[in-house]
Order: sequence, then C-alpha cells, then structure tokens
Amino acid sequence: MTDAEHAALLEGVTAGDRRSLARLISLVENADPGVERLLAELYPRTGGAYRIGVTGPPGAGKSTLIDALVATLRPRGTKVGVVAVDPSSPFTGGALLGDRVRLTSRTPDPGLFFRSMATRGSLGGLATTASEVSDIYDAYGMDLVFLETVGVGQIELDVVAASDCTVVVLVPESGDEVQAMKAGLMEIGDLFVLNKSDREGSGRAAREITSVLGLREPSTGWRPPLVSAVARDGRGVTEILTAVDAFREQQTASGEGKTRRKRVLREKIREVAERILRRQLWSGEGETALEDAAEAALEDGKNPYVLATELASRLASRRDAESSQQRGGRS
Amino acid sequence: MTDAEHAALLEGVTAGDRRSLARLISLVENADPGVERLLAELYPRTGGAYRIGVTGPPGAGKSTLIDALVATLRPRGTKVGVVAVDPSSPFTGGALLGDRVRLTSRTPDPGLFFRSMATRGSLGGLATTASEVSDIYDAYGMDLVFLETVGVGQIELDVVAASDCTVVVLVPESGDEVQAMKAGLMEIGDLFVLNKSDREGSGRAAREITSVLGLREPSTGWRPPLVSAVARDGRGVTEILTAVDAFREQQTASGEGKTRRKRVLREKIREVAERILRRQLWSGEGETALEDAAEAALEDGKNPYVLATELASRLASRRDAESSQQRGGRS
Repeated sequence: MTDAEHAALLEGVTAGDRRSLARLISLVENADPGVERLLAELYPRTGGAYRIGVTGPPGAGKSTLIDALVATLRPRGTKVGVVAVDPSSPFTGGALLGDRVRLTSRTPDPGLFFRSMATRGSLGGLATTASEVSDIYDAYGMDLVFLETVGVGQIELDVVAASDCTVVVLVPESGDEVQAMKAGLMEIGDLFVLNKSDREGSGRAAREITSVLGLREPSTGWRPPLVSAVARDGRGVTEILTAVDAFREQQTASGEGKTRRKRVLREKIREVAERILRRQLWSGEGETALEDAAEAALEDGKNPYVLATELASRLASRRDAESSQQRGGRS
Repeated sequence: MTDAEHAALLEGVTAGDRRSLARLISLVENADPGVERLLAELYPRTGGAYRIGVTGPPGAGKSTLIDALVATLRPRGTKVGVVAVDPSSPFTGGALLGDRVRLTSRTPDPGLFFRSMATRGSLGGLATTASEVSDIYDAYGMDLVFLETVGVGQIELDVVAASDCTVVVLVPESGDEVQAMKAGLMEIGDLFVLNKSDREGSGRAAREITSVLGLREPSTGWRPPLVSAVARDGRGVTEILTAVDAFREQQTASGEGKTRRKRVLREKIREVAERILRRQLWSGEGETALEDAAEAALEDGKNPYVLATELASRLASRRDAESSQQRGGRS
C-alpha cells in the first residue's frame, strides 16, 4: 500500500465511509503487515464506543437479541457496529452467520455495520482481530459495539474478555446447566438475559439463575441482574439497555471500569507484540529454516524438540541482528 | 526438578509406569519450562504408535465409538492411549468428559490410558499439547493413540491434523449437514463412520455421504470409505479397524504418509519454538515491561499499538543479549 492509499483509507474510515471501513476490516482479518501502523494511527480517534460482549450457549438466541437491540437503538440515533465470531464452524466459512448479512445489505445505513468472522488468520487469534475491529468501529464513529459469539468456548471467552460489559444470554432450558456453569459462565456476566422467557419452565429457570447469582459476592458493588426477554418480539430490549446503562454508570463510579480497561489493554499489547514477532519469525529466512528443520526431522530422524529449541534461539539472534541494522540505519 | 527426578521420570515412563506417565502428561499440560528437554529425551523412543484422530459433530457418538474400539483392541493385546480434547467447555473443566474416567480408573490396565483436556495452558495450544501427549504415549509403549475431539471447531481440526489417520464420525441426522460440510469435514476424513446406523434415515444418509465422497478426486490413490456402525452395540468396530489397516498400508505404499508426517513435524517444530520464545518473552523483565506498557496506555493515554511495536523490538533485543551472555558463558 502506498502512503497515499494508506492516508486515503484512514481518512475514509474516520469520515464515515463504509467502503473504507470494510476494506480496513479485511486488512486486519488478513493480519496484513501494515495493520499495526494503520491501527496505531486510528487509535487517537477511539474511546467513544462502549463495547458489549454477548455470549451464552448455542441456540440461546444471541443474534436475534442483538438484532432486536439494534432495531431499538438505531431509531434513537445510536450508531452500532457488530462483530460476530464463530470459531466453531471453520468449514462453513461463516454460513451459519450468513443470513445476518441482511442486517447491513438491505439497509445501507451509515450508522450500522455488521461483520462476521469464522476463521482465524494464521498469525493471530480471532479474539485479537475482533478487538481490533472494535477499535476500527470506534474510530469510524460507532457509539456501541457488540461482540457476538456463537458458543461459549475458550475463544468466545477471549472475545468477550475484551468488552466493557458482558451479557450472558440463557434460555429456560439452560436451567439445568446453571449449576454446572456456576464456576464459569455465571462469573463472567455483568448482566444476564433469560431469553425465550415465554417458554415453559421460565419461572423455575429464573429462580435458579437468580439464586446462583445471589451467591456471588458483589466485590465491585454490582450484583448482576437477570432480565427476562423474548428477543423475537422485542420484549425486554428496553430493560436490557437500561440495565447496561446502570452497569456502565456504576462501573465508572466504582473505578471497576478502569481495572478492566487495563486488563484489556495489557492483553491487546501482548497479542499485538506476539503477532509482530511471529510475522518476523516465520517470514523469509525463518520460513526456510523451519522447512529445513522439518526435512531434517523426517529424513535424518533429527529430534524435533531439539530442532525447535535450536530454531528458537537462532530466530532470536536473527531478529536482533536485523533490528540492530535498523537502529544503525536510523541513527 | 532435580536431574535425578528428571531421570527417574523418564525411566518410569519408558518402563511402563502409569504414575510416571500421568505425571509427565501433567507437566506437558502445564507447559512446565523443562518439558522440551523431557520430550526431547523421550523422542528417540517414539515412532511405534499409530495416531488416529476422531472428529465429527457433537452427539455423533465419538467417545462411545472409541470405547467400543478399545474394547475390541485390548483383548487383541493392542495397547491404547486416548487423548480427548474439549475446547468448547472450559467452564466445566472437562465435566462432559468426566464420566470417561471410568475407562481407566475401574481397570488399572497398563495397556490403556485415558486423558482428557478441556483448557489450554497460557503458553500453548491444546493441539500442541495433545500432540505431545501422543508422543508420551508412544514412548510409553502404546500401539495406538486416539486423538478424540468433542466438536468440529478450529482447535479440534488442529488436533486431528497431528494424526496419521483421520476418522470422521457422522450420524443419520448429519445428512443435511453433509452438503454444507462438503468443503470441510468431508475433505479431512480418511475414513468415514456412519454411527447410530440403526436409526431412521440411515440409508438415505449413507447414499448422500457416499455420493459426496465420490466427488473427491482420490489424488493419493485412496478413496475414503464409509463404514456403518452402531458403536453402542459394538457393530461395525471390526470393519473400522480393517479399514484403518487398509488405509495405513496404502499410506505407506503411496508415500502419502511421509508427506503428512513432514507437515506434522513442521507444525510441531513451529509450535514448540513459539512456546519457548513466548515463555522467554513474558517472564521476568518482559512481564514487567508489559505491565508498564498497560499502565502507560491506561494512565497516560499512550497508544497500545505503538507500545506493542516498541515492546516487540525491545523483547527481541533483550533475548539476544541473554543468549549472547549464555553463549559467552559456554565458550
């Protein structure tokens, strides 16, 4: 990318151009070598968007709920970006999420953007990419970003860990799972939604969830509420948004938001630094060295663990030699 | 760990001591700093075990099928190690797999070992760990290793990618999914099992799967067969083992096994080298530098992408300084 293209892309994103937005997201998804610079230049424009992670068991209706939230938020003038992450189906290339494209394609609304990701790049995790897409939405001018996950696996947890507020969506059928989930899902939620609450068993499920939530020590002064909803009909949506606002206020007042923000920043810095190093490691000479090592292990019966250890120190030296040269060049 | 403990552990594993086996697996799971050395020393003892990856949609009966295979293999004298990977439920700490412990606990059979893993360590992926546990089983003297996955997500694919033979387990209900899966699941299988084939719709499902498999160009001279089974009753188990043997023979004859083995070795070397580097990066000074960077981003509004880039080059230099010192010390 030329410097002019680079500048035009950044200018486009901050000016609210959808095509620039889509293009930059693609660059981040592909872990293009120039992305750190682009993201660094966009960063001063961020800070305006509140990030809401939405997780819960498959089938809980998370995407329907987000659609309902968006339908309420847009008429209010709230600009919304959605990143939907589905690490469980690399095969379908996001086909499970495919029908969601309607959200954006039908209405070319500049205040709404939707992107789904099903496969991670070779260089980084889906969670890092999702967090970077949130930064891009933020710089574009979105007020709210939804980080939507399909399941409740490890990658999904990493995704919601980068949010300011985590909403856990359950259904009446989840009641039995609640006990087992006590140590996990229940602990990460700042707000719980009992979706499909018009179904049988909803009362019992609500009581069980509330009882488990009651066991939590509200160390931060916030006891996560449970909101009943029927996302399909838009029921409970206003209550959810009110609860999010209440959480956000309390989070600011208590300083909990700052602690969380620091953790998010630390993980971002760690992940981006690792991606930069990984990109340097396995390109050019590093790629050849890896291929040679695999050949030596296969053909000469060399020990792969020994080869890996040797490779690690060789790559470290090579990188330093390169960065010394760069430092020399700059001085 | 002292050198004596180290030696005793290796001696124990290669002599077939179950407690040593369990202990070494735990060290690998925790990415203990000494594991590369232990694995390197065990490596010359490996090469005897054939590794079979078992994947497929949740509920296809993969674990029941493996139990049935084990029940047939053990009386034949075949020693079997099982690694079951469940990245989708970090919460339950492997509770979904918990009942499988019966396999090993009820029968203290030295020729059978079972280990399930639900959470990845902080330093490496589940797939790398599963592959290393396979190496340990191999050195312990197992003839067969099953790499079992719970779902069909990206992590699970990485797990089966480290196997010599991949078995995809489907059920009659998977029929509709087969079309969508054409580009993914169908392509990675060397052998397909239609489990629960006593259920309605089994004939139609078998025809659909066979038809999709027929589209595959058998570039390696192997057209993946479909075996019908009812794992619960042990039906189809012998046929599956026969098909695996046929694949194994063809794989050796065609040289395809070698290509695959090289890919597996390359990924192992890459992953282990990255883990070593990561461990060096984020310990001691690196950890402090990361914490300082997060603080600077939060309190002084410093740009996290710039901080990450700086950190990456600083860490590279630090590592090189250390390894120069080590080289100096050794010379």
